[in-house]
Amino acid sequence: MTSITTVGVDADDTLWHCESLFRLSHQRFIDLLAEHGDTDKIEAQLTAVEKRNLRVYGYGAKGFTLSMIETALELTDGRVDTRVIREILAVGREMLTEPIEPLPGVEKALATLSERYRLILVTKGDLLHQEQKLASSGLGDFFVAVEIVSEKDAGTYRRVFERYGTGAEQAVMAGNSMRSDVLPALEAGCWGALIPYPLVWAHEAAEAPVGHARYAELGSISELPAWVDSLR
Amino acid sequence: MTSITTVGVDADDTLWHCESLFRLSHQRFIDLLAEHGDTDKIEAQLTAVEKRNLRVYGYGAKGFTLSMIETALELTDGRVDTRVIREILAVGREMLTEPIEPLPGVEKALATLSERYRLILVTKGDLLHQEQKLASSGLGDFFVAVEIVSEKDAGTYRRVFERYGTGAEQAVMAGNSMRSDVLPALEAGCWGALIPYPLVWAHEAAEAPVGHARYAELGSISELPAWVDSLR
Repeated sequence: MTSITTVGVDADDTLWHCESLFRLSHQRFIDLLAEHGDTDKIEAQLTAVEKRNLRVYGYGAKGFTLSMIETALELTDGRVDTRVIREILAVGREMLTEPIEPLPGVEKALATLSERYRLILVTKGDLLHQEQKLASSGLGDFFVAVEIVSEKDAGTYRRVFERYGTGAEQAVMAGNSMRSDVLPALEAGCWGALIPYPLVWAHEAAEAPVGHARYAELGSISELPAWVDSLR
Repeated sequence: MTSITTVGVDADDTLWHCESLFRLSHQRFIDLLAEHGDTDKIEAQLTAVEKRNLRVYGYGAKGFTLSMIETALELTDGRVDTRVIREILAVGREMLTEPIEPLPGVEKALATLSERYRLILVTKGDLLHQEQKLASSGLGDFFVAVEIVSEKDAGTYRRVFERYGTGAEQAVMAGNSMRSDVLPALEAGCWGALIPYPLVWAHEAAEAPVGHARYAELGSISELPAWVDSLR
């Protein structure tokens, strides 16, 4: 018999679109560089540079913008037109200032959950940008705490649910990333719910823990309140 | 009769050099652009772009790097050599990977304080970068909590000292910035200690609250433990 007190939810691609914006920016980058190579080559190079820089830049749109500029210089051996660099800066700025719309069902699900549980937002990314997205989304009041972290591992979840809840064993973590939201939360002792988003960043993909007693894959966030209630 | 339980300290330019690195990067930027204008013009333009972008990029080296690139494009009307852009990326990367050395007296002061008070690090900047700097500094174990925030205002300090301490009235905040570390902490009800650093970013300058009962300007961080003790 468990007694769930606390629910953590991821932000990007769980509460609002994010990966689709990154994909759109990838596409705009490919278009900008089109005369310097074919799509696959440009895409592969950008992905490689992003991955290489993750350790230094971390997650988020600012580091991604710097990686786009670096890729443009590398792909063209420095012969890129500076108008392209200017366009890349504009793409990055648009990512940072895009208005945020909650995904379907999010507002209702959070309203229901926040009446019964301590609701905590746990997300990676640029500190200021994530705060601005939350403010823009209008969802801020549903959460008793917001934790913006540089990495989501089991230690992160133990710490967050210890600090704001009653420990990981009485907490659910829900999000779209198997690698960041579900697996480390299960490892920490939480319950974990995958809420799939149509697009998954390659970096966040991982195998499902099929048969795990504390794991569920849900059809959408609308199913989350009932699933959490069923754990009581 | 107060009873101080908690001490918050700033990180950049309080525990380790930071502004001097930004100044050095400014200088390298000016040298890179030297053929396109005189020092004053380049410096003024970079400062203006940084300030304009603060709202979107926030504080930290990644946003500063993007601002340097934008300034280079503006100053040269797009005629900047792409080798300069590559150099700017390198300058930014060096800022993000520079090894961190504590300033003189910091380790001893933190060791003393951490025996008697809850010691909390409160800093602005890039989330991942600040965590990496703290790890690199070797000072992490002195702190019971680390709060990396997007803005330091009175609400920030109330929240932090409520969460990790026993409220703002029983807390001291110490740092090198009058505008970010001292004034909003005093407003929140904390005691505030200014620990001057030879360089002050123009954005962080503000007038001293001379005669304020809960304020002191110290000669160095070495004086902080005795000053906090004197408040008991």
